[in-house]
Amino acid sequence: MQATSIDRDTLDQLARQIRRAILRSTTQAGSGHPTSSLSAVELMTALFFQGHFRFDADHPEHPNNDRLIFSKGHASPLFYSLWAAAGQVSSADLMTYRQFGSPIEGHPTSRFELTEAATGSLGQGLSIGLGMALNGQYLDRLPYRTFVLLGDSEMAEGSQWEAMELASHYQLNNLIGILDVNRLGQRGETMQGHDLTAHQRRIEAFGWETILIEDGHDLAEVDAAYRKAFASDSKRPKMLIAHTIKGKGVSFLEDQPGWHGKPLDEDQLQQALAELPAEGEPITGNLASPENAQPEKSSPQASQPFDYKIGDKVATRNAFGNAIQRLGPQWPNLVSLDGEVSNSTRAKFFAEEFPDRFFEMFVAEQNMAGAAIGLARRGKIPFVSSFAAFLTRAFDQIRMARYSDVNVKFVGSHCGVSIGQDGPSQMGLEDIAMFRTIQESVVLYPCDAVSAERLVEAMMQHHGISYLRTTRGKTPVLYDDQTRFSIGGCNVLRRSSNDQATLVAAGVTVHEALRAQETLQQDGIQVRVIDLYSIKPLDRETLRQAAAETEVLITIEDHFPEGGLGEAVRSAVAESTASIRSLAVRKRAMSGTPEELREDQGISADGIVKEVRSCVGQRVG
Amino acid sequence: MQATSIDRDTLDQLARQIRRAILRSTTQAGSGHPTSSLSAVELMTALFFQGHFRFDADHPEHPNNDRLIFSKGHASPLFYSLWAAAGQVSSADLMTYRQFGSPIEGHPTSRFELTEAATGSLGQGLSIGLGMALNGQYLDRLPYRTFVLLGDSEMAEGSQWEAMELASHYQLNNLIGILDVNRLGQRGETMQGHDLTAHQRRIEAFGWETILIEDGHDLAEVDAAYRKAFASDSKRPKMLIAHTIKGKGVSFLEDQPGWHGKPLDEDQLQQALAELPAEGEPITGNLASPENAQPEKSSPQASQPFDYKIGDKVATRNAFGNAIQRLGPQWPNLVSLDGEVSNSTRAKFFAEEFPDRFFEMFVAEQNMAGAAIGLARRGKIPFVSSFAAFLTRAFDQIRMARYSDVNVKFVGSHCGVSIGQDGPSQMGLEDIAMFRTIQESVVLYPCDAVSAERLVEAMMQHHGISYLRTTRGKTPVLYDDQTRFSIGGCNVLRRSSNDQATLVAAGVTVHEALRAQETLQQDGIQVRVIDLYSIKPLDRETLRQAAAETEVLITIEDHFPEGGLGEAVRSAVAESTASIRSLAVRKRAMSGTPEELREDQGISADGIVKEVRSCVGQRVG
Repeated sequence: MQATSIDRDTLDQLARQIRRAILRSTTQAGSGHPTSSLSAVELMTALFFQGHFRFDADHPEHPNNDRLIFSKGHASPLFYSLWAAAGQVSSADLMTYRQFGSPIEGHPTSRFELTEAATGSLGQGLSIGLGMALNGQYLDRLPYRTFVLLGDSEMAEGSQWEAMELASHYQLNNLIGILDVNRLGQRGETMQGHDLTAHQRRIEAFGWETILIEDGHDLAEVDAAYRKAFASDSKRPKMLIAHTIKGKGVSFLEDQPGWHGKPLDEDQLQQALAELPAEGEPITGNLASPENAQPEKSSPQASQPFDYKIGDKVATRNAFGNAIQRLGPQWPNLVSLDGEVSNSTRAKFFAEEFPDRFFEMFVAEQNMAGAAIGLARRGKIPFVSSFAAFLTRAFDQIRMARYSDVNVKFVGSHCGVSIGQDGPSQMGLEDIAMFRTIQESVVLYPCDAVSAERLVEAMMQHHGISYLRTTRGKTPVLYDDQTRFSIGGCNVLRRSSNDQATLVAAGVTVHEALRAQETLQQDGIQVRVIDLYSIKPLDRETLRQAAAETEVLITIEDHFPEGGLGEAVRSAVAESTASIRSLAVRKRAMSGTPEELREDQGISADGIVKEVRSCVGQRVG
Repeated sequence: MQATSIDRDTLDQLARQIRRAILRSTTQAGSGHPTSSLSAVELMTALFFQGHFRFDADHPEHPNNDRLIFSKGHASPLFYSLWAAAGQVSSADLMTYRQFGSPIEGHPTSRFELTEAATGSLGQGLSIGLGMALNGQYLDRLPYRTFVLLGDSEMAEGSQWEAMELASHYQLNNLIGILDVNRLGQRGETMQGHDLTAHQRRIEAFGWETILIEDGHDLAEVDAAYRKAFASDSKRPKMLIAHTIKGKGVSFLEDQPGWHGKPLDEDQLQQALAELPAEGEPITGNLASPENAQPEKSSPQASQPFDYKIGDKVATRNAFGNAIQRLGPQWPNLVSLDGEVSNSTRAKFFAEEFPDRFFEMFVAEQNMAGAAIGLARRGKIPFVSSFAAFLTRAFDQIRMARYSDVNVKFVGSHCGVSIGQDGPSQMGLEDIAMFRTIQESVVLYPCDAVSAERLVEAMMQHHGISYLRTTRGKTPVLYDDQTRFSIGGCNVLRRSSNDQATLVAAGVTVHEALRAQETLQQDGIQVRVIDLYSIKPLDRETLRQAAAETEVLITIEDHFPEGGLGEAVRSAVAESTASIRSLAVRKRAMSGTPEELREDQGISADGIVKEVRSCVGQRVG
């Protein structure tokens, strides 16, 4: 570590300058969280300007820069003011805080270049930091450290304890939490109040090393705590637990309830600034330099082709597992995270071949999603797999991932009533809806092994949040290895010059639609069959053409109707006058065989035939 | 407590009989989790048949029956076999396990009468138990106990630690967890393996009393542990932590990997049964009787009317808070749970008036939703409130609530880009989609204080999962107190005999639509304006009529397009040939003023006017 030396007066001056900037920027904005920012000023000032945080600001992407995540994202005024004191944000820019168009947003997002990951929904930063620390320790093998500033209120979030558990399991001594125990939450006191040892007991029980800071506003004590954390040679992650005062530095704000999320008015601001004299402001503090270590890198190797024959019965979840295993050599940055179900999702195929690039994340889906964000921000391409149903557990993290602009792939297995006997708790029936709500997301749902493999390849080529929905049971291979699949594409599997309706299906219902088509053909009714494997984005043109030519679209999905394939198609062909009907899971889901359940829900071949006959009959009638 | 006496031989015989039933029912089903069930046989046999579990099986709804939740819901073969041994499930019914139509589902759901709450998604049972324990201790004030059987794998779920923290905060010594430490998860060993003290350290740090059971298959030791738990006079919740063997009782299954979720084949079954001789089977064990205490009940009092004047500016979140406060006397079972934001959601209006019926659930949304399920199963009517964005945190619990058939009301405040400066992390933009996916759910989104109040009344009259979406900023009161609002209804606010388009809005966009209507009218363009305050179910008839009469529907929503108001309307008017256009949040959300953000997203009055002109122009052209 390259130390920076700074005298105590300058340090005090920097802290005061940061406080002034916090107050001025929030008053200017008319909103924001000055008091939650003021409590952590010394914790961050010591980190940045006493040589602990090693960061080359001219090269924010330097692989060995230390990383800092504000898990308490509402302390964004401190975050920006800190970077301003480090010379990275101008005073003028700081005063655009929360204005429309400014990257200096209300809570940090990736629109501000130095944001490591978007925060603001509490209890997410530690998981993200864990992902970065996993990368440093196990993948890039670099000596950078990851710091996470945590609020005490957010320790009530279970996701924190998922991250705590996994961090100690993986012995991430490069992960340093800084817990700002300012006692006050939004509407009152936290469960622990100012009892540092209550936090300490829990955190130590989860396998972390803790360092108490009795006065989180004493720069010397904070400095010493960092030094102690770095000096430890234990393999445990470290948590600094600091007694702080909410609103510190302004007499009428200190430790007072009722000031959460409230800026000062102009008069109050002047009164506050008078307590925080500026001398020779602005000054700039220096950050220590990162080490020059370079990440370990493997060269890409060619991937092998796959070998499925038409008619082979292969579950798409197996094809997913095969695909990431097959693509592993070609994509050295591809990593896999699984929530203790890798034998079911088939992520284990990859895990067995690339144990160093597989992370068992246990039954803790929120942390798994957060860790994937952290890994992605460090250049890895994580596949996050669990049962589709259980990815709902991480909706908030998935939602937030979008504001970090990350490249994360989610894979949900065991979708739909087609899982059968295990019953509704295990059935992913709302996953398409969930992932469709993520802006710019990709939602893919292959019906056979070949399309599943090709769609995993397409996901690798795509930067962003994408979702692959896989099926538990085996389905016959429909496609040869020359068939092309693309994000936004579809395949017209059956078509004639006098189709009377179009069946729009995906995944398991493609096979039901094909069976229905055969039955109907025997009755002299021609229908078109579309495999809409890309549900978002989707191939509007082909759907519109089908709507125009056949006048009836029938969507069939093993998913609830709301937000699913049917509604996606309706939105896509809005301008059409075709009649659209949607077969979906509308009755209560329960245990049974996959066939019984699809029949019961009207999404089997029989149900489709019945629906087509009723439409076509209607039209003829 | 009325003790039951049972000799050791009979108890052993019951345990063997339960093991046989577990094995036979899963082999018959061809799926299920026998080994995960076998590890907890003695833990449950001792509970039921040594006089600890006080339950009147002739009156499952007896207010003082003890409660048992299988948080490890995959141990359902044990659950049903236990109730069979208690004489509540016939052998024939047991053998319908996992068959289509049978209430004996793969994981427990409310279709089986003795299921307290549906489980199967791990890490949810403790929160549900916490809700039941809160009810016993603080509301009904009854001496019943709540038992929760927990798996060791699921202790990785953060939701467990949310429940742990809250249970000790509320001093719920009527809540008893039984942790079945069988070492093996689905695909391998848990993080703690068989280290009971690793679990103990964590659980004690969270304020629970723990009792270790060194051999969870020794009925005498298990019995003694229960006695010790009941004898304690501490105010702490209790956790029995038991060393058990997965697959216990069958030599070739015991402590073996690779047997998770796998039934025996017929030969293996015979081999296993030979190790578990049946003597005089079936026998039935007796449960202890519950005490005869009756719940404390208050008589309903008349609620007061509200008083808003048309044009008053009132935030719908305030109207929600006013409404539950106002309705409190009329509905003694109404309770409120809030995630440490009651000053923002306005649940605090109720909390201040009815502190005994308000539960601060801190920043732990998953546990809050689970606790609400538990309270609802004990006859309470919980309102669960947080920011709409943060309810995504509890999607898995909300999804599962449906399979418990509970009466829970969710309220999400701060929806849409209309919150403004705080930025996207705080904006609920996917909540309508999320709640629409819940089968038979109700989704309501009022635009003013009067409709908000009336819709809260409608929610109280409705049994089921319902969601109220409220707005941060003030909106003018549009309705007088005579206007009627109903689930599934809407209000046509503007209509003429020559409307050229219909604007379908809800919440904040109703006001934008009304402004647009005025502007357009000045240009001689008449449009209809519908306040679609009930998004699910919705008033198909009025929408279809509008579609038929005006030929153009324009939906406007402060929500992402996927799964929102627009798609709900499209699905409702599927048979119509009207053109439907949807204005929604399609660009990246960011900080700014509400007005700037609505303008930017094209959902302001200006955006609507522009869209109408383009449609009407098109049609004229």
